[in-house]
Amino acid sequence: MNNFNLDALAQRFRRPQYTVEDYVKGILSGDRSILSQAITLIESHLEKHQQIAQQIIERCLPHSGRSLRVGITGSPGVGKSTFIENFGLEIIQKRQKLAVLAIDPSSQVSGGSILGDKTRMQLLSVENQVFIRPSPAGKTLGGVAQKTRETIILCEAAGFELILVETVGVGQSETMVQSMVDFFMLLLLPNAGDDLQGIKRGVMEMADLVVINKADGEAILSAKLAQRQAANGLHLFPAKASGWTAQAVLASAIEKKGLSEIHQILQKYQSQTQQSGFFAQQRAQQSRYWLHQSIQQKLQAAFYQNTAVYNNLINLEQKVESGEVSPFYAAELLLNQFLSK
Amino acid sequence: MNNFNLDALAQRFRRPQYTVEDYVKGILSGDRSILSQAITLIESHLEKHQQIAQQIIERCLPHSGRSLRVGITGSPGVGKSTFIENFGLEIIQKRQKLAVLAIDPSSQVSGGSILGDKTRMQLLSVENQVFIRPSPAGKTLGGVAQKTRETIILCEAAGFELILVETVGVGQSETMVQSMVDFFMLLLLPNAGDDLQGIKRGVMEMADLVVINKADGEAILSAKLAQRQAANGLHLFPAKASGWTAQAVLASAIEKKGLSEIHQILQKYQSQTQQSGFFAQQRAQQSRYWLHQSIQQKLQAAFYQNTAVYNNLINLEQKVESGEVSPFYAAELLLNQFLSK
Repeated sequence: MNNFNLDALAQRFRRPQYTVEDYVKGILSGDRSILSQAITLIESHLEKHQQIAQQIIERCLPHSGRSLRVGITGSPGVGKSTFIENFGLEIIQKRQKLAVLAIDPSSQVSGGSILGDKTRMQLLSVENQVFIRPSPAGKTLGGVAQKTRETIILCEAAGFELILVETVGVGQSETMVQSMVDFFMLLLLPNAGDDLQGIKRGVMEMADLVVINKADGEAILSAKLAQRQAANGLHLFPAKASGWTAQAVLASAIEKKGLSEIHQILQKYQSQTQQSGFFAQQRAQQSRYWLHQSIQQKLQAAFYQNTAVYNNLINLEQKVESGEVSPFYAAELLLNQFLSK
Repeated sequence: MNNFNLDALAQRFRRPQYTVEDYVKGILSGDRSILSQAITLIESHLEKHQQIAQQIIERCLPHSGRSLRVGITGSPGVGKSTFIENFGLEIIQKRQKLAVLAIDPSSQVSGGSILGDKTRMQLLSVENQVFIRPSPAGKTLGGVAQKTRETIILCEAAGFELILVETVGVGQSETMVQSMVDFFMLLLLPNAGDDLQGIKRGVMEMADLVVINKADGEAILSAKLAQRQAANGLHLFPAKASGWTAQAVLASAIEKKGLSEIHQILQKYQSQTQQSGFFAQQRAQQSRYWLHQSIQQKLQAAFYQNTAVYNNLINLEQKVESGEVSPFYAAELLLNQFLSK
């Protein structure tokens, strides 16, 4: 009587096989579960998943673009999670739909830590108007960033109006995030100091808004000092192409202070730059940047995945290392081989 | 009677047409004029010049590698020219042949300023044992760096035993220089200060030696303070893979103080890392790095120089900017077109 059918059981628990049409319909209707599964396709390294993902993206593209994309960064310890959680609750009180994504440069191997911890943002993650997705894993930061950019398109098509892209304050990842957001927010602690808490000058220069977080209790005074220092620092940078003047504000995520003001600043930025035309102009530039980034990635993938070229590369790499052949001539030989196919 | 022959006249003043054989023989015999003309071929954008240059490089390669390659950087005003001139005179007194090259990130358009000024290093430039070459011009920093790396091979084949590669303290160019030198030297002014005179932390971390220059006259005390601060700073970085401990020393290029000691430090580094095997290991790694850099450059050149692809790119770029097509799909279309050839 043991006709227990494993196949039937597996079938029951297998994910439904959606068509591209199903995915697009689900996303456009705001179905967070289907959105999530479509993003899994974007993140997949399987060729067949990638093909479906690209079709979904192209179909969603005409419905995308209508959000404000905000990058948010700060050193570990600045309280990004708590800030995003409480700022997020503020956003949905204002009846805006919120997506929180992340780019973690340390995710290149393991999948990273940002947003990966399910215990983070417990209050926010149960809200219907909110979609939270941890950083995708990937071999290169460029690859990770591309997946996030594609994810933004789907989130926008699903009706999310504010998209927060979180990263950590190390420089390279901020540049990637800046290439996909409209507005860039930097969180600092109320510790005054010339070294700006390990934040690189370039990151400070990107900021459209500096938020001195944890400005509560006994830290109020030092927070005000840090605010003044940050404001002075921002003042020294050349004027932004957006015409926007970066400012420094105080906030306390825990006491929910300053969050409503930050939301107003975002809205002011959006209307101001949409009126001036900079908003659309920057997005066009970013798309162009991603086109060329994508060309570069695909060129390299095609080259390194070519088996014949790869075998020859292994051989030439040794000759280059031992000084028998110059790196430039070896590259020439490999390119000729690659392009003669 | 006016049978004045322009062609014959032009012929007389035309440069001799050397064969690859001539170039190689000239370089190996240490002929600085032929070396200089061969470098001009390396720097040329003409395909036929590039072809001859590559042949010369491959022929010189077995005779290269026997120098110490030293990167040297510092903010404008630190006195790099005077330092290199007087340090160079010290080197040739020790009967070493010296080549001075440069990588100038600002040379991408105009040919740059580093070493470009003929009035610089007047004492050094007349010496027979010395070869000075300004930064090559190029469209990209990577391209400029590649030409410099090729130039190093020819200089080594011509018997130059110490090769100084000069750059300015802006970060990106240092990374390029570090990928082609054995030893990295950072010049600082005797101004103590937390901000390290605008030198990025990453540049400081690369340094095998920090030289507090202009440590003369009334600046001696502040120079000693700067030395102590730099030493403390160096101490905080993780141990180097080379096993070498970076140090900070005082020098006065004008008073010719500390220069002999710096030369001794270089020699100590060379013998220590050659014994440990790190010297050869680092060069092998650098060659490998340049192979992959070169592959990347050539892939992109082949792609963007393909006329049919380029015409399609112009068209798709507009569609990407207007949001009709996603950058990723446009890249896919272009790659398929490029690779189907």
